[in-house]
Amino acid sequence: MAMVEFWYEFASTYSYPAALRVAALAAERGVALAWRPFLLGPVFATQGWRDSPFNIYPAKGRYMWRDLERICAARGLPFRRPEPFPQNSLLAARVALALDGDDRAGFSRNVYAAEFGEGLSIADRALIVRLVADLGLDPEAILARAESDANKSKLKSECARAIALGVFGAPTLATEDGELFWGDDRLEQGLDWAAGGGG
Amino acid sequence: MAMVEFWYEFASTYSYPAALRVAALAAERGVALAWRPFLLGPVFATQGWRDSPFNIYPAKGRYMWRDLERICAARGLPFRRPEPFPQNSLLAARVALALDGDDRAGFSRNVYAAEFGEGLSIADRALIVRLVADLGLDPEAILARAESDANKSKLKSECARAIALGVFGAPTLATEDGELFWGDDRLEQGLDWAAGGGG
Repeated sequence: MAMVEFWYEFASTYSYPAALRVAALAAERGVALAWRPFLLGPVFATQGWRDSPFNIYPAKGRYMWRDLERICAARGLPFRRPEPFPQNSLLAARVALALDGDDRAGFSRNVYAAEFGEGLSIADRALIVRLVADLGLDPEAILARAESDANKSKLKSECARAIALGVFGAPTLATEDGELFWGDDRLEQGLDWAAGGGG
Repeated sequence: MAMVEFWYEFASTYSYPAALRVAALAAERGVALAWRPFLLGPVFATQGWRDSPFNIYPAKGRYMWRDLERICAARGLPFRRPEPFPQNSLLAARVALALDGDDRAGFSRNVYAAEFGEGLSIADRALIVRLVADLGLDPEAILARAESDANKSKLKSECARAIALGVFGAPTLATEDGELFWGDDRLEQGLDWAAGGGG
C-alpha cells in the first residue's frame, strides 16, 4: 500500500481546509496517510523570516485571507480568523506528536476547526485540554507525555526532518519516491502520484 | 459578456503553462480575456526583493522547478530551463504591450514557448525580432512603437495598476468584481467565478 506523509503546522491557514479533507482523499485512492505535525518557525528561520510571510508581505497576506474565505465558502467550512495570527502552535504540535494514529488525526482536525472555524486561540492550554478530553483521552497524562523531554526532542527532530526533505511551507505531501506537493490545492495531485506509483 | 484580466510577466515560470491554456479555458466559459503584460520587478521591490523569490529562497526554488517540470510533463508541454533565471523580460513586455488583441496573445504565447519550451533567452533582441516576424508583422515598426516613450510610460502605468489591484505574483486573474486568483492552478476557479457572476 502506497504511503504519503502529510506535513502540517497548526498555525498554517491552508493546512486547515487540507487537514479536513486529506484523509478522505487518501482513502478514496487507497493511500495510507502518515500525519506529520511540525513547526514552520525553524523552517522560516532558515529563510530569514521571524514572522509569517503573510504578515511580512501584506499584499500576499490580504490575498491569502480572501482566498481562504472563498475556499471555505465553496466547501461549506466555517471560517473565522484567529487573533493574533499566526497563533502560537507549540503546545498543539507537541500534543499531536504525543498521540498516535486516529487520535493524532482526530485531535489535529479538531484543533484546526477550533482555530480557523471558531477563531479560538490554540495557545490557550484550557482549549487544548478540552480538545484532548473530547477524544475520550486523559488530558493530564497526554499533556505530561507531550511536554516530556523525549517528545520535545522528537518535535525538533521532526522539524529537522521536514527541512531535510525540502519542506518550506505547509501543508506539504511527501511521497515515498521523494516528491513534494505543496498546498491544499495539490492534495489530489500528490495522492494521485502516490496511488499511481509516480508520474 | 464577463471579462477577466490575465496579468502575466514573461520571466514568470508558472505564467508559461498558464499562458498556453488560459485562452481556451476562457473561451469554454464564454469569458472575454484581456492580456495584461507587466513586470514583477517593481512589485517585488515593494516587498524588498531584488531577485526572484525562487532564487532568494532555494528550497522554494527547487520545489518550483520540479513542480513546473511535472506540470509540463502532465500536459505534454516541452520544458527547458532558461539561463539565467529570471530572464530580463523588459523588451518582451514592451513589445507585447505595443501589440493588440490576437497579436498580443499570440506573441506572448510564442515568447513563453521559446523561453521555457526551448530554453532561449528572451533578452536577446534577435529572438524578439524573429517572434514578431513570425506573426507576419513588421519587426522594425513594432519595436519602434514598443520602445517609444509613450509605450515605456504605459508599461510603467500597467505595473502601477497591477500593484494597485493587489497583484503580488504572476500569473494573476483579476475579475470585474475585484477578485484576484493567483497561479496557474487557479485559472479554472477564477474563470468559473467570472462566468458565474461571482461566488
